Amino acid sequence: MRFFRVRSREEVLREIQSFQAVPEEEIPLENGLHRVLSRPIIAPEDFPLFPRATMDGFAVRARDTFGASDSQPALLQVIGEIRMGEAPSGSIGPGQAMRIPTGGMLPEGADAVIMVEHAEEFEDMTLEAYRSVAPGENVVAPGEDVRRGEEILPGGWSLRPQDLGLLAALGVREIEVHRRPRVAVLSTGDEVVGLDQSPAPGQVRDINSLTISAWLEREGAIPVKMGIVRDVPDLLRERIQWALEEADCLIMSGGSSVGTRDHIMDALCSLPGVELLAHGISVRPGKPTLLARADRKAILGLPGHPVSALVILHLLGRPLLDRLSGKIYAHRPRPFRARLTRNLASAQGREDFVRVALEERDGELWAKPILGASGLIGTLVRAEGIVRIDQGCEGLYQGEWVEVEMFP
Amino acid sequence: MRFFRVRSREEVLREIQSFQAVPEEEIPLENGLHRVLSRPIIAPEDFPLFPRATMDGFAVRARDTFGASDSQPALLQVIGEIRMGEAPSGSIGPGQAMRIPTGGMLPEGADAVIMVEHAEEFEDMTLEAYRSVAPGENVVAPGEDVRRGEEILPGGWSLRPQDLGLLAALGVREIEVHRRPRVAVLSTGDEVVGLDQSPAPGQVRDINSLTISAWLEREGAIPVKMGIVRDVPDLLRERIQWALEEADCLIMSGGSSVGTRDHIMDALCSLPGVELLAHGISVRPGKPTLLARADRKAILGLPGHPVSALVILHLLGRPLLDRLSGKIYAHRPRPFRARLTRNLASAQGREDFVRVALEERDGELWAKPILGASGLIGTLVRAEGIVRIDQGCEGLYQGEWVEVEMFP
Repeated sequence: MRFFRVRSREEVLREIQSFQAVPEEEIPLENGLHRVLSRPIIAPEDFPLFPRATMDGFAVRARDTFGASDSQPALLQVIGEIRMGEAPSGSIGPGQAMRIPTGGMLPEGADAVIMVEHAEEFEDMTLEAYRSVAPGENVVAPGEDVRRGEEILPGGWSLRPQDLGLLAALGVREIEVHRRPRVAVLSTGDEVVGLDQSPAPGQVRDINSLTISAWLEREGAIPVKMGIVRDVPDLLRERIQWALEEADCLIMSGGSSVGTRDHIMDALCSLPGVELLAHGISVRPGKPTLLARADRKAILGLPGHPVSALVILHLLGRPLLDRLSGKIYAHRPRPFRARLTRNLASAQGREDFVRVALEERDGELWAKPILGASGLIGTLVRAEGIVRIDQGCEGLYQGEWVEVEMFP
Repeated sequence: MRFFRVRSREEVLREIQSFQAVPEEEIPLENGLHRVLSRPIIAPEDFPLFPRATMDGFAVRARDTFGASDSQPALLQVIGEIRMGEAPSGSIGPGQAMRIPTGGMLPEGADAVIMVEHAEEFEDMTLEAYRSVAPGENVVAPGEDVRRGEEILPGGWSLRPQDLGLLAALGVREIEVHRRPRVAVLSTGDEVVGLDQSPAPGQVRDINSLTISAWLEREGAIPVKMGIVRDVPDLLRERIQWALEEADCLIMSGGSSVGTRDHIMDALCSLPGVELLAHGISVRPGKPTLLARADRKAILGLPGHPVSALVILHLLGRPLLDRLSGKIYAHRPRPFRARLTRNLASAQGREDFVRVALEERDGELWAKPILGASGLIGTLVRAEGIVRIDQGCEGLYQGEWVEVEMFP
C-alpha cells in the first residue's frame, strides 16, 4: 500500500510532540554542561548559609553608627578580626566592631558592615565611623538569595556554565538528566560516495553525513554514523532496521528524485510497525521531507540537497531533538526584527523559508536574501538567519519588517 | 615594588591583542566542529564537478524546445536514461532527450532539463515538451557554485556544521586549525573549599572553578583544573608557576578583599618575567580584575564573586580566548535593541554592566534590569543579556533604547 501525506510544517510539529523523551540518568554535576534536567531541582539548603560581608570593612551593630558623620564620628572599639574561611572567634556587643573582609562571616551581634573607606582605625584599636549604616547594609543574610526547598531550576532546563555554578553553590553534587539521545545518521543514494573516495563522473561526496553528525554533536546528541546505502529497497530496509536497533532516532538524507523516494518508501513500508506521519511537506526548501514512527522511534528523512537538508534540520530536526532530549528551556537567541532589502515572491499554499544575511544600515537592521536554489557556498556560509513567508502570503515587499530567526 | 594600574576596559582589550594565538595543527575534517582555521581555505576543485540536473525530467538541447506550448508541443525522441551516480552512457543530438533524475549528470550535447511536469513520454519513446526551456535551465554548471582556486573560508573562521559540509563537498580532507588553547583554572581563597567538602561556618564552595571550566569547554578551550590554593604567597606562586607550565593561559579567581589581592600581587611580583598589565579596571562589576603577562602567557585574575567573575569572563575572558584561539569569525549573535523598563543610575568614570532579562510588550522588546549586587540566582539564571552604561554617562532612563549584548 502506498499513500502520500503531504503535511504542513505545523502538522508535522504536532506529530513530533507525540514522541517520548529518552530515559534519564544520574551524572556528576561536573559533567553537566549542555545536559537537560529531567526533573526540577529543589534547593537542598539556604544560600548563603551564613551572613556574609559584601565589602571590606568593619562588622558593627548598625544602631551604634546612628547619626555618624565626618564631623561627628561614632566611636567604636575594635575587638578583633574575622578571617576568611573561619567562623568569628567571638561576638560583638554595644560599641564594638570587628575587622571583616569581603566574603567574611558576620559575628554574632553584628548586623551591618561599615566600609573601610568610611571609617578610620587608630593604633589603640579605637574606630571612628564617619557614616551611619542601616541594619543589613553591606551584608547578605542567610537564605537571602535562595531558601531551602525552593525550586531553583525546572525540569527541561538545558544547563549552562552559570547554572552549574548555581547548583554547585547549593551543594548539589549529582543531577538527574536525560540521556543524550543517540541519533543514527544514514545517507542514501546511488550517486553518493564516502569522503575517503574520489567521486567518478556522476558521483558526489557524502556531505550530509558529516553536516548532520556535526549538527547533532553541537545540539548535544550523539551521532551514530550508519554510512551510505544504495537505493535498493532490501539494502535500505536492512540498514534502517539496524539503525533503529542502534539508536533512539534515525535521520536519513537523500532521495530528492522521485525514483529514489519511491525506494525509500518501499523499504519503510516493508518494515513492521512503521507508521508514516508525513511524506512531503508544504515547505520550500524541503518538500521531499519524510517523518515516520517505527515502534516508538522517529525516522526523519531529509532532502538530499545539503542546503535543504540543513534548513529542515533546523525547522524540524531541532524540535524533534528537543523533544527526545526533554529540552524545554534551550536558551536560544530570540528572533531579530529586520527590514527586507528586496521583494520576495512566494507561492501560496506553501511556506517559504529564505536564508538571509544581516547588515546594519543607518542603525537599522536589514535582511538580505541569499538566493540561488542550486547554490552551496553562499547559503551555507553567509546565511545568518532565516525568514519565513507564510503559506497564505504571496510574497514580501522591499523595506517590509520581518522576523529573522537565527540560523546557527 | 608594588604598583597599581587601574585601567579602562578599552585599554585592557588593547593589551589582550598583544598576545599570540596558539600554534596550529592538522586534523581530519570530521573532527573540525568549533575548531578555528589557522589559514584560509582555497577550493582544491570546482563545485560541482560536472553539470547536474536540479529537477526530475529530461535532459534536452534548449533550442529544440523553442516555442513549445500545450497546444504546440515540441516533439523529441527519448534515447535513454541517466542513472544516479553514473556518467551518461551517450550524448544527445538534435531532437533527442534522456530521462534524468534530480542530481543526475547531464549528457554531452544537453544544456537544459525540462521538468517531468512539463512533458509527457509515450510508449514509443517519443516525448512531447509543453514548455520551452532556456539554456542552463534546471541545471547547475561545473564550477558555478565554487571555482577551483577561490578562497572559500578565511583564516580565523570558527567551523560550524555547514562549513564542514562545504569543505567536504570540495574534497577537503585535512584542515589546519589552531590547537584548542589549554587554560589553567585556579581558585584562591582561605574560605574556599572543594565541591566534595561540606563547608564549615565561614567557608564557601568553589563555584568558580566549575563555572569557568564549563565556560571554557563551551568556548572551545581545554580547561586544566588546578584546584584551590590558600592565600599564602609562597603557595600561590608555586601553583601559578605550575599552571603556567601546564597551560597556555591561566584564569584565576578570588581575591575580592584587599588583603587577598595583596597576597596574589605578592605572588605574581615574585615570579620572574611577570608584567602587570592591569590591576583593577574601571568596570562594575569586576573592579578587582587583574591582567598580567608571564613570558608570553596571559594571566587573567577574576573577582571572587561568581556573578562578577562571569561578567568579566564575558567582557575580557572571551576576547582573550578568541585571541589565543585565533578566532576572528565567531558567528555570535548580534546585540539586540531594547527599551529599558526602569531608570539605571551609574557613577561617572566607570563603565557599568547591568544584566537584563528580555521581554516582549506590544511587539517591542524591553530590557528588565536584574538588580541586587549580592544575588546569585537571579543574575545567573534569568539574565539573558547585558547592557553597558558608558563611563561618561550618569545613567539611563526608563524607556530609553539600549543595546543588549547576549549573555549566553
